[in-house]
Amino acid sequence: MPAAVQNQDWTLEELAHAVNLQVRGNPDQCVRKIATLQSATPDSIAHYTDERYLEHLKNTSAGAVILTDANSGLFQGNCLIAQNPRLAFAEVSLRLHQRRPNKPGIHPSAVIDHQAQISSTAELAENVVVRAHSVIGDNVVIGAGTFVDENVSVGANTRIDANVSIYADSIIGRDSSVASGSVIGSRGFGYEKDHDNWVPIKHVGRAVIHDLVDIGACTTIDRGTIQNTVIEQGVKIDNNVQVAHNVNIGKHTVIAGNVGIAGSVRIGSNCILGGQVGVCDHIEIADNVIVYAGSLVTKSILQEGEYSSSFPVQDVRSWRRVLAKLRRSAAPES
Amino acid sequence: MPAAVQNQDWTLEELAHAVNLQVRGNPDQCVRKIATLQSATPDSIAHYTDERYLEHLKNTSAGAVILTDANSGLFQGNCLIAQNPRLAFAEVSLRLHQRRPNKPGIHPSAVIDHQAQISSTAELAENVVVRAHSVIGDNVVIGAGTFVDENVSVGANTRIDANVSIYADSIIGRDSSVASGSVIGSRGFGYEKDHDNWVPIKHVGRAVIHDLVDIGACTTIDRGTIQNTVIEQGVKIDNNVQVAHNVNIGKHTVIAGNVGIAGSVRIGSNCILGGQVGVCDHIEIADNVIVYAGSLVTKSILQEGEYSSSFPVQDVRSWRRVLAKLRRSAAPES
Amino acid sequence: MPAAVQNQDWTLEELAHAVNLQVRGNPDQCVRKIATLQSATPDSIAHYTDERYLEHLKNTSAGAVILTDANSGLFQGNCLIAQNPRLAFAEVSLRLHQRRPNKPGIHPSAVIDHQAQISSTAELAENVVVRAHSVIGDNVVIGAGTFVDENVSVGANTRIDANVSIYADSIIGRDSSVASGSVIGSRGFGYEKDHDNWVPIKHVGRAVIHDLVDIGACTTIDRGTIQNTVIEQGVKIDNNVQVAHNVNIGKHTVIAGNVGIAGSVRIGSNCILGGQVGVCDHIEIADNVIVYAGSLVTKSILQEGEYSSSFPVQDVRSWRRVLAKLRRSAAPES
Repeated sequence: MPAAVQNQDWTLEELAHAVNLQVRGNPDQCVRKIATLQSATPDSIAHYTDERYLEHLKNTSAGAVILTDANSGLFQGNCLIAQNPRLAFAEVSLRLHQRRPNKPGIHPSAVIDHQAQISSTAELAENVVVRAHSVIGDNVVIGAGTFVDENVSVGANTRIDANVSIYADSIIGRDSSVASGSVIGSRGFGYEKDHDNWVPIKHVGRAVIHDLVDIGACTTIDRGTIQNTVIEQGVKIDNNVQVAHNVNIGKHTVIAGNVGIAGSVRIGSNCILGGQVGVCDHIEIADNVIVYAGSLVTKSILQEGEYSSSFPVQDVRSWRRVLAKLRRSAAPES
Repeated sequence: MPAAVQNQDWTLEELAHAVNLQVRGNPDQCVRKIATLQSATPDSIAHYTDERYLEHLKNTSAGAVILTDANSGLFQGNCLIAQNPRLAFAEVSLRLHQRRPNKPGIHPSAVIDHQAQISSTAELAENVVVRAHSVIGDNVVIGAGTFVDENVSVGANTRIDANVSIYADSIIGRDSSVASGSVIGSRGFGYEKDHDNWVPIKHVGRAVIHDLVDIGACTTIDRGTIQNTVIEQGVKIDNNVQVAHNVNIGKHTVIAGNVGIAGSVRIGSNCILGGQVGVCDHIEIADNVIVYAGSLVTKSILQEGEYSSSFPVQDVRSWRRVLAKLRRSAAPES
Repeated sequence: MPAAVQNQDWTLEELAHAVNLQVRGNPDQCVRKIATLQSATPDSIAHYTDERYLEHLKNTSAGAVILTDANSGLFQGNCLIAQNPRLAFAEVSLRLHQRRPNKPGIHPSAVIDHQAQISSTAELAENVVVRAHSVIGDNVVIGAGTFVDENVSVGANTRIDANVSIYADSIIGRDSSVASGSVIGSRGFGYEKDHDNWVPIKHVGRAVIHDLVDIGACTTIDRGTIQNTVIEQGVKIDNNVQVAHNVNIGKHTVIAGNVGIAGSVRIGSNCILGGQVGVCDHIEIADNVIVYAGSLVTKSILQEGEYSSSFPVQDVRSWRRVLAKLRRSAAPES
């Protein structure tokens, strides 16, 4: 079945050279796909890091296994020796399973304004729309049905998947990706009250996405009010996340699914926000902060470290005792 | 006004026969639409289950009411007698309000690869894109602007609404549905750190949706890393839900809106996850588990039952007392 | 760079007249864009409300500043005097940064049913689809790739952005907006159990959006079961929000990002729901209620006021003490 993901045969020697590992065993052994220890076949490569899976290692049919030097005595078959087997496995996965080559050109059904600049090596798929003054860089791939409004810039090698919407004036860097259904550069949620009515403030800032940023599916990143909303280099954002106007997310920070980041928040670099974390507006979060899934950040976090405010589920009866106890203890008379 | 939902006249006898109920009163009475007891007109059918609505029952203008045998003495008009009036009402609703018949064929604006296999009874709407090696089954309806990448399979009678994005290699079963804006088979959120940079791991698993599954709007279901992400038969998923890579959701489980399910979670069958529930990665949830809205699952739940960790709102003053009390009680010196 | 947002030169006198403010200083001073006090250049107008920014006020290069009469002594340059400078600034922003004029007409790539009624002043962009019996009002703008199913009505001056999906029978009022990726009128999440299977109930109500409503990106608003889902005049809804079937949201209520509102909820007017708030099904919320970010509403709120159930993050060690204390205090034997 000719899948969109192409497999290629690699010898262990070729892989070791590409990813900077050492071979132990037969350097001419060929592998063509990644696998778990359990699911592996002789044309697969797996990895081992956790002694809970020692039985799987001993019984694996993998053509090769990636593991540490310290663990290499546990396995008699072909190995690639790595300091960090998980990282090596990720790097191997990218070699074995390369995307199909781009098909440079503009599909006849695409609607491209004559004032847009499209690199001759870019691939614009079915029903793509690119408006005036937008610039699409080398080797960019834009998926079917994606809309690029005026004056947008997309850097080289970036992939925008199908049915994405990119508002005017947005800037997306190189080697980045945006998954389907996401929205970049929409108006921020800013209003001032005039008697009963809410008067919108015009948002004239941009959404600016730097290089090596990945944005998941159905994620929304609003433009800034006056300054820009900025996602710095190497940030990774999961699905169904909201990033509001004027937010700044520092380098290499990771944002898991369903997170909501309110207006004018500044998040440092190398942070991790777990799933469903909320960050209230105008908050600052320092570098190297980890916020656990389901927590709410209501005040600035000025020191690196790990933070939480989430309660683990309990069975309903014991949970009700927690609630009752809390209520009694916090009654005014107490 | 010719709405998209077509009403048809049914006699009570016809309905009773179709849904396996008993008529009391005039079997030739015609009804053509569902209604509440209050809003009902003589061409409507309503249902009664809750004594809070007894006054509405007594005053209803409905042409017929569905109720239990035990309650049938409360109403003098035409009835359909059901063991479970809510279920019977649902089944009646599907008969009275049938979708317009499909219009088999491919809209001229659709872009279908010549290596795709499209059933002659399928309806492919405006601007649909289907790529090579994808297979679209009998009586499938695909809505406007929906993108189906390579090597996807969509089973018979399934409805994919407008502006959905389906990534390569996804499998969707029979009699299922996907509402607008949703994304199936996007890359999972898996990275390994290499100094500052996050290296993605290639996701070569699929998103596999079994039969009789409903997926709401703006919901995202990632593909698996190596194994597949699997949504089993009869699962119902609401809007704005995230299902991460490698997740397995068991038969007939129900997932309400805004839920986030992290990577490699296994959820049993016949579970119910309330709105905004979060499930942390690698967790296992047994069959027949109910998790209350807003709760966070941080450890596996191995026993069936009801679970919660959500706090009900209070007025802000009393809530602040709860917080202060908690903080004091948990101070290190206490 | 000809951006999609057009700037125009205004004298302070013209602005003061348009927005009903007083000029102090040179009424012929021209400004053409909004700015912060810090970023302002002589062709910019900024505003001042908060004494934390007094230094920025003293050092600003702005061509003019909007402030209160009481604060006007703090600044020697040109001013616009306003009772509410933030509101005045919003109103000024809308004058200075006007959208490009609509381009009435239907793009050749759009697919419009001959039984749809499209105003001659409406702008329908690339790949828009409008089906039979839908009515698109004067000066409406519909963005690229948006799908409007049968029997939909869109009122005058409303803007629907790119890649929006509007289901059959939906009604959207005048002067409203829907941002990209959103879904209006999808089927509600209503099922009845029949042994193992969930039987859907047909949703024959509509999604009805009144005038002056803004709906953000990737937000979903389901249709009603029998009655309609109704969003009343002036409501503002942010991104990634779910509004379920039969919900009624009262006038001028504001709903922040990632909020989930379950079925049949009634929310009053002039309420504010913070980010990630959840509201359980069948709940009623009075007028003038504020619910803090991250809170869960599990019972009706019948009195106006402020409500919360959210915990602020703490460092993980102290948070673990909170959890341990809670667990002990709620143990059955205590």
